[in-house]
Amino acid sequence: MRLHAPVILLCDPECTVLRDAVLDIGDDGRITHVGPADHAPAHDGPSGSVTGILMPGLVNAHAHSPMTLLRGLGGDLPLMRWLTEVIWPTEAKLTPDDVYAGMVLGSLEMLKAGVTTSAEMYFYGEEVVRAVLDTGARLVLAPAIIDAPGWDWAAQLADTSRWIDNDGLRFGPGDRIEIGYGPHSAYTLSPEALAQVGAAARERGALVQIHVAESLPEDVAQRAQHGSVPALLDQVGLFGGRVLAAHAVHLSDSDIETLKRHEVGVAHCPGSNTKLASGIARLTDLRAAGVAVGIGTDGPASNDDLDLWEDVRLAGLLARVSTMDSTAVGAADLLLMATRGGAAALSRTDIGTLAVGAWADLVHVGVDDPAFAGGLGIADEHLLSNLVWAAGSRTVKDVWVAGRQVVADTASTTVDAGDALAKARAATGRLI
Amino acid sequence: MRLHAPVILLCDPECTVLRDAVLDIGDDGRITHVGPADHAPAHDGPSGSVTGILMPGLVNAHAHSPMTLLRGLGGDLPLMRWLTEVIWPTEAKLTPDDVYAGMVLGSLEMLKAGVTTSAEMYFYGEEVVRAVLDTGARLVLAPAIIDAPGWDWAAQLADTSRWIDNDGLRFGPGDRIEIGYGPHSAYTLSPEALAQVGAAARERGALVQIHVAESLPEDVAQRAQHGSVPALLDQVGLFGGRVLAAHAVHLSDSDIETLKRHEVGVAHCPGSNTKLASGIARLTDLRAAGVAVGIGTDGPASNDDLDLWEDVRLAGLLARVSTMDSTAVGAADLLLMATRGGAAALSRTDIGTLAVGAWADLVHVGVDDPAFAGGLGIADEHLLSNLVWAAGSRTVKDVWVAGRQVVADTASTTVDAGDALAKARAATGRLI
Ligand SMILES: [Zn+2]
Ligand SMILES: [Zn+2]
Repeated sequence: MRLHAPVILLCDPECTVLRDAVLDIGDDGRITHVGPADHAPAHDGPSGSVTGILMPGLVNAHAHSPMTLLRGLGGDLPLMRWLTEVIWPTEAKLTPDDVYAGMVLGSLEMLKAGVTTSAEMYFYGEEVVRAVLDTGARLVLAPAIIDAPGWDWAAQLADTSRWIDNDGLRFGPGDRIEIGYGPHSAYTLSPEALAQVGAAARERGALVQIHVAESLPEDVAQRAQHGSVPALLDQVGLFGGRVLAAHAVHLSDSDIETLKRHEVGVAHCPGSNTKLASGIARLTDLRAAGVAVGIGTDGPASNDDLDLWEDVRLAGLLARVSTMDSTAVGAADLLLMATRGGAAALSRTDIGTLAVGAWADLVHVGVDDPAFAGGLGIADEHLLSNLVWAAGSRTVKDVWVAGRQVVADTASTTVDAGDALAKARAATGRLI
Repeated sequence: MRLHAPVILLCDPECTVLRDAVLDIGDDGRITHVGPADHAPAHDGPSGSVTGILMPGLVNAHAHSPMTLLRGLGGDLPLMRWLTEVIWPTEAKLTPDDVYAGMVLGSLEMLKAGVTTSAEMYFYGEEVVRAVLDTGARLVLAPAIIDAPGWDWAAQLADTSRWIDNDGLRFGPGDRIEIGYGPHSAYTLSPEALAQVGAAARERGALVQIHVAESLPEDVAQRAQHGSVPALLDQVGLFGGRVLAAHAVHLSDSDIETLKRHEVGVAHCPGSNTKLASGIARLTDLRAAGVAVGIGTDGPASNDDLDLWEDVRLAGLLARVSTMDSTAVGAADLLLMATRGGAAALSRTDIGTLAVGAWADLVHVGVDDPAFAGGLGIADEHLLSNLVWAAGSRTVKDVWVAGRQVVADTASTTVDAGDALAKARAATGRLI
């Protein structure tokens, strides 16, 4: 399969913009060639063309997408009241079918916005996987491990290890599902539990996804006891393997060094961090230190949508205003964070970029929109600016995952969107 | 004309949510009745119904919408280089036809997002008016007055006064056009010029729209010379009549008191202020002091879109994180700022709310969207949360201005959107 496009964004480290280019997809769903049309190798298989911008699918680096069912519920309450009085009691009522319905809804919302991969932490993991297999998206799942009344962290840890041992780290068509470990946080698990999770993950080369230094109360408590959250996670050996730190808001310089030393990736969640008044993460410092940073929406109960483009813009706006430097983060930086940066934060190089051997996870952005007032014939950096700062989910027309088209002209080709919404509504109606 | 809706948001001070309600529109385009369907007066004229949420059109409290043509141009440069090397030289080439084309494009973008009124500061004001008359939107225009090489502030002031004296403060079908004064700022006009503009505006009851304490360099310079920008504007008598202060970022407590004492409205522009690293305005302090605050996008060259909903959410996020209080601003507060607050900032009570006598500037928000995962049958505050935090421009289906439908099922009924984009592209292609 060959796709011809007037503009292809490779999302390589240089943020290369190809004009009049082609991309070839092998039968296994991986990219076999990408480059200018006039130097393309001969091709006699099926081919197609798009009229706008072809780019890699976005990576949502941290989410709890089944919470679409709880979107906006009690959202104006203070954080602890919101969690203890509204969210946790409602989540306790969730059935496996609810989690499936919520994940389908969230997955469709992300696909339509051009987000092809999401890193999810949730429970009833089999249902999350089933939902994503049905919608056609790509998933990096961290089944939640938490030490709280009614939960058995050791059993959850064992379940995840068994799952990986049975099915492998990645499975499904196009290797679309990856399973990792989801220790919730340093304040909901003991150092001993964290150490055991870390050891199990390292042994299997699995990704650990964990909330790190999200809110000030958490951070202050951990600083008093252990120096800091990253210091604690370092001490217990959790940082030895592939680790994704979600939020990472309250960090000292030495915490940032610790993250970099262990090549820990960060999922920056600016929408959640501002809405919950958690704080503003040190994005420019993390990037300057060389830490891999992706962007995450966090759960739609708090954020409240899964429109990663809005979080990408917010990341740029917060970085600029918090440093009082309007050049702190540019459009190309943001685009790369939303794609290859997110992949790198998940310790992945096979997604988030258009390169030979990478998965053909693609987005076609249409340019018949006032966001592109100057059309395609403008300078590269101007076009990137229009794409990142003005366009976004509204302009996503077509989406492919591992070479399979899952959104065609803004409509899902896999799961019926109206049906998914109706099922989610039925579940929500019962829950609240 | 009677419209029946399952939900009507009055945007009165209590943010009342009516269920199963009707709204009647008189032949002059004003609302003649709004209330529950089962208590509605007899009606035998034409009627219609909507399936989602009916609410007032949003008010964009500060914009330079013809700059859609320059969207994203040089957007990653530092502010002064961006202005002096890119924006001003390009603006100098704008023809009246360009301003018309840019304003049509911007006006359509706003209408499709449910923004029925915008407060604009720009030059070639007749073209801005012509564009808005053509698209069907509502406009509060402040023709720019500036003291700079190539400009004659006294002539601009006289032109605006003559325009108002000839055509009246408001004119056009549905009184859709209001003309006021647009003194650019305290750093581009002398105290004497500001005083003369203030006197001319007060004499005519006209609105003054002016940039106030937007950036730190401006603010520091004015503090050294006059105490502060608001102090200077107070001293020269500019604050005597109807005044809209755009940005108002760098304010002392006493500046806020000055704004309140003179009932100066504020157009809070969080997207522009963060992207340009101007700072974070003291939204919660302004509101606590009782200052009328609306939300503005500022110009699309910097912001970069005219999607007011995104700025509304950003206003909430910044207020929460800057105060570290997740209850600082709620969904209802934001909704009211985007509607009646914007109207109040423009010293208007005939828009931004659904009340008898107000203009029938209406938006129908469709709820067949994952933003409304719980449908309409959820608690009022939950529904407002879904609307403000998760829905937005994507869900706007129909729009009326002064009772005339200008957007029907997401498409403009007035100007052809494809044609408008093509004309804007032709202009942009020549300019850059
Ligand atoms: Zn989370
Ligand atoms: Zn402005």
